[in-house]
Amino acid sequence: MSKQNIVIIGGTACGPKAAARARRCDPNAHITIIEQGSNLSTATCGLPYYVAGVINSQSALVARGLDFFKDVMDIDVLIQTQASVINPKTHEVELLDLKTSRVSRIGYDKLVLATGSLPVVPNLQGKELNGIFTLTKIGHADAIRHYISANNAKKAVIIGAGLIGLEMAEAFASQGLKVTIIEALNWLLPALLDFEVAAYVEKHLRAKGVELLFGQRVSGFEGAKNGAVHKITTANNELETNVVLLSVGVKPNVKLAKDAGLTIGSLGGISVNQFLQTSNPDIYAGGDCVENVNLITRKNMLAPLGSTANKHGRIIGTNITGGRETFPGILGTAIAKVFDYNVGRVGLSETQAREAGYDVVTSLVPSFEHATYYPGSKEILVKLLAEKSTGRLLGGQVVGSGDAAKRIDVLATALAFGARVDDLANLDLAYAPPYNSAMDPLHNAANVILNKQSGLAKALTPMDTKSKLDNQEDFVLLDVRSPIEWKDCHFEAPQAKLIPLGKLRANLESLSKDAEIVTFCRSSVRAYQAQRILEGAGFKNVKFLDGSIAAWPYEVCTKPSSDEKEHLFRL
Amino acid sequence: MSKQNIVIIGGTACGPKAAARARRCDPNAHITIIEQGSNLSTATCGLPYYVAGVINSQSALVARGLDFFKDVMDIDVLIQTQASVINPKTHEVELLDLKTSRVSRIGYDKLVLATGSLPVVPNLQGKELNGIFTLTKIGHADAIRHYISANNAKKAVIIGAGLIGLEMAEAFASQGLKVTIIEALNWLLPALLDFEVAAYVEKHLRAKGVELLFGQRVSGFEGAKNGAVHKITTANNELETNVVLLSVGVKPNVKLAKDAGLTIGSLGGISVNQFLQTSNPDIYAGGDCVENVNLITRKNMLAPLGSTANKHGRIIGTNITGGRETFPGILGTAIAKVFDYNVGRVGLSETQAREAGYDVVTSLVPSFEHATYYPGSKEILVKLLAEKSTGRLLGGQVVGSGDAAKRIDVLATALAFGARVDDLANLDLAYAPPYNSAMDPLHNAANVILNKQSGLAKALTPMDTKSKLDNQEDFVLLDVRSPIEWKDCHFEAPQAKLIPLGKLRANLESLSKDAEIVTFCRSSVRAYQAQRILEGAGFKNVKFLDGSIAAWPYEVCTKPSSDEKEHLFRL
Repeated sequence: MSKQNIVIIGGTACGPKAAARARRCDPNAHITIIEQGSNLSTATCGLPYYVAGVINSQSALVARGLDFFKDVMDIDVLIQTQASVINPKTHEVELLDLKTSRVSRIGYDKLVLATGSLPVVPNLQGKELNGIFTLTKIGHADAIRHYISANNAKKAVIIGAGLIGLEMAEAFASQGLKVTIIEALNWLLPALLDFEVAAYVEKHLRAKGVELLFGQRVSGFEGAKNGAVHKITTANNELETNVVLLSVGVKPNVKLAKDAGLTIGSLGGISVNQFLQTSNPDIYAGGDCVENVNLITRKNMLAPLGSTANKHGRIIGTNITGGRETFPGILGTAIAKVFDYNVGRVGLSETQAREAGYDVVTSLVPSFEHATYYPGSKEILVKLLAEKSTGRLLGGQVVGSGDAAKRIDVLATALAFGARVDDLANLDLAYAPPYNSAMDPLHNAANVILNKQSGLAKALTPMDTKSKLDNQEDFVLLDVRSPIEWKDCHFEAPQAKLIPLGKLRANLESLSKDAEIVTFCRSSVRAYQAQRILEGAGFKNVKFLDGSIAAWPYEVCTKPSSDEKEHLFRL
Repeated sequence: MSKQNIVIIGGTACGPKAAARARRCDPNAHITIIEQGSNLSTATCGLPYYVAGVINSQSALVARGLDFFKDVMDIDVLIQTQASVINPKTHEVELLDLKTSRVSRIGYDKLVLATGSLPVVPNLQGKELNGIFTLTKIGHADAIRHYISANNAKKAVIIGAGLIGLEMAEAFASQGLKVTIIEALNWLLPALLDFEVAAYVEKHLRAKGVELLFGQRVSGFEGAKNGAVHKITTANNELETNVVLLSVGVKPNVKLAKDAGLTIGSLGGISVNQFLQTSNPDIYAGGDCVENVNLITRKNMLAPLGSTANKHGRIIGTNITGGRETFPGILGTAIAKVFDYNVGRVGLSETQAREAGYDVVTSLVPSFEHATYYPGSKEILVKLLAEKSTGRLLGGQVVGSGDAAKRIDVLATALAFGARVDDLANLDLAYAPPYNSAMDPLHNAANVILNKQSGLAKALTPMDTKSKLDNQEDFVLLDVRSPIEWKDCHFEAPQAKLIPLGKLRANLESLSKDAEIVTFCRSSVRAYQAQRILEGAGFKNVKFLDGSIAAWPYEVCTKPSSDEKEHLFRL
């Protein structure tokens, strides 16, 4: 039996997974992994926690030692080795030994590109100063840890409010640094969340002492005599800092593929088919370096993630050893721990859905993660969106101190099957008081959309409500909470009026039937009920404030409305 | 406009939900709720936690006060009132005021039966003794609390190892009682879990000091002179006790429906169509008193749960006010907190699937809830099953100290859409180290099934392995863990042999190629790898032990294998 030669370029996630899977599928293949660094299978997703000191040992971030690949998997590993050129015609890869500078060649029957991504480094003046970092390797994390302690750093500036930026905000803060995040766009996680959901997370970051500057582009860095960065300049600002993290994103590492003549997609990633084959049928690619199909839009997208890379690796390992498995695509699922908040999203944001031309209906539902009578129930904010004409789910965002991960995974599963909102509303999810309410927050969010679709529920977004207030429009902002909740926190606006829900039916005459009325409470449950009571009584122009005070993305009052209130005054 | 008369019998979950929904859909209807007890919307699912003292106030278990229904919802509530007879011809219900014994009549256009379930009380000698309880109402919980303290109870016996029985084991134990559970069938949660999964939970209960007696039927109770129970007798045992909980199940409360001539299903619940209409089109029914369609088998089942009751209520509220919504069915999803374990299941168990005639392929996968390098990752055991011929998922069980609820909800969602195993394997679930591993435990469990289907993975169940050991068969039970793990805990069997995975390729000559070899490790990951190595080297009869030591349902050694081992010695 002639042994097949498999060469895999890249040793982080997709590469080792493809190699191990190939070995399990084919005991005889000759398998080689080429890796520039000194380790395979490094858990780069853990780097922010390593900087934070939550993970203390570097070795914890190396999932598999080199011995494992040799002794268990019978796989050759060439570390500190660069693949410099692919020659598809001769089926050879040119290698450069980074220690000795020796050049050699390796032949392949099947080649796998798992070359990952590279951090985007904007071409800013002073970017070569000391104390300016990116974070994609263990070496970077070590350098940051060392720089902070060696320079007794007190202030950190993070450029880019993406996932890594937010995770690193917590990491820097946990090391005692004062943290500022500068984001060129207008809210945090702009590629993932909508404004009002991002604002909910932003309040938590500010409460944790993180400063956020939106809509500002960094123009350059200034350094001290010792070459250490000490100032950042933007169009409107100058900030002192001791350390800078550049986290404005990553781009697929496709130089090798491009030079070899492989097709590169319009987003800059390697084009692969559903078998994860590139335009050359003997070359496969997976992980951060390829473009994926978005299962909602059926268009390509970039979403570099270890989870996708591992799935790619398994499928590639199968297919390069004679299998024929397909990768269906992704949903842009993402989650991050942001201090004490869980921040997740899946599918399209409303912003993305509208850009893609969908007519969208949404719900914005503050809920508790489990039955409020069982101790420890924490809040989550659910934003759900669906296509108006079909009721098909398009995406969801779940954020807060409560269990967001579970709801994101349920949504990811539902979206993978093209679920409609009414499917979601009736899912038989697990219920017992420590885990959920009888109606899951997703059930409630789905039902709000169904109510909007049927015309029962009429809502005004917080953004539109704010705009009406700012324009001093003539309407009634009807607070239907209890007097104690009002006392605790209320809108200081001439339009604001308090009628607790339990007294609304008895006080209808205090409102004009022709007035425009926007009802609100803490979570919207009472506000929606009030809308229906008023409509039942013949009021013609009533809406409720979507998400009410709990999801209000602006300031209401300095003292935030307590989570406990809804329990005490749930009328 | 003529007002529609809506009468709803039953005020726990489905009834109040139907009433509130009907009010929101129709502001003019005249809506009346009839309830035997003194409260509406009682959270009966919270009763074990109320007995435990985790929930201390009775009022916390009443979701909505009576004022709410009157003042906010404009709903008439007749408490302490029994609906005694339904006359479908005259569209009337005869009512009995339980305080005054006055009889009256109420007419309806639409009637809703939300009569719930009744605890099954076996007809045992001495069942009328003091200290023998069921638990379906707040009154029962209060009585139990009072009885324990008034009688200084030290021992509790629970009859029936179902969900309530297990939740109450923790409740009694938290009150300082020594707890024994007697179950007529052969393992705990027999209607929900398979043997080997139940055994995993059983070990935890025993570690918490709970005694479990399986395959024993109670024959009667004996009491002291004061009328208090003090002994339970079974065919093989006599147990002293101070308090007894009868938790052998509930049955649909259908007397009213039956007397009214409505169709009752073969399982004893009210028959309803997808609109939740009974055999009389003006009478709807929902909650514990009806039979539901199982979405896997398409046959009816009973699964009394607050979550289903609430969904029913909403749909009934819509349909009795002119809507036309459908309830798709259920998946038998269930979850319970059992001391520090989360115990969930959905779809069919293997036992149920085989009984229903499915040809089944399963996986049994001990995993960690999130990346093990991130602190605090706890173990879960996943059992997954699929139909062999189609790969369609049939059900799953997830138990352990880690996050089981999330995986059950993902499975519930996947099952609702008829997912196949390969769909599950590629779901784009949320990944970041605090929430998951790059491959979710469900991905791994799905991949194990795919590997079995493709012939790559060959497994032996723990039950078959135990039987081979008990029969003293000639085979090699090959432990591929590290020597330290072996020292910590190993099989004391002549068939047992240790070759750490990293040394297996170098020690092939110490094994006979014709021997039957069953490999195992802690979780099965290394064991499967060993199977593939041996097969690659020409061994003909190799299997791995499904679930390995972590899921071994019997005793291995007194000192359990530490969770940490796999991290330290992951070769």
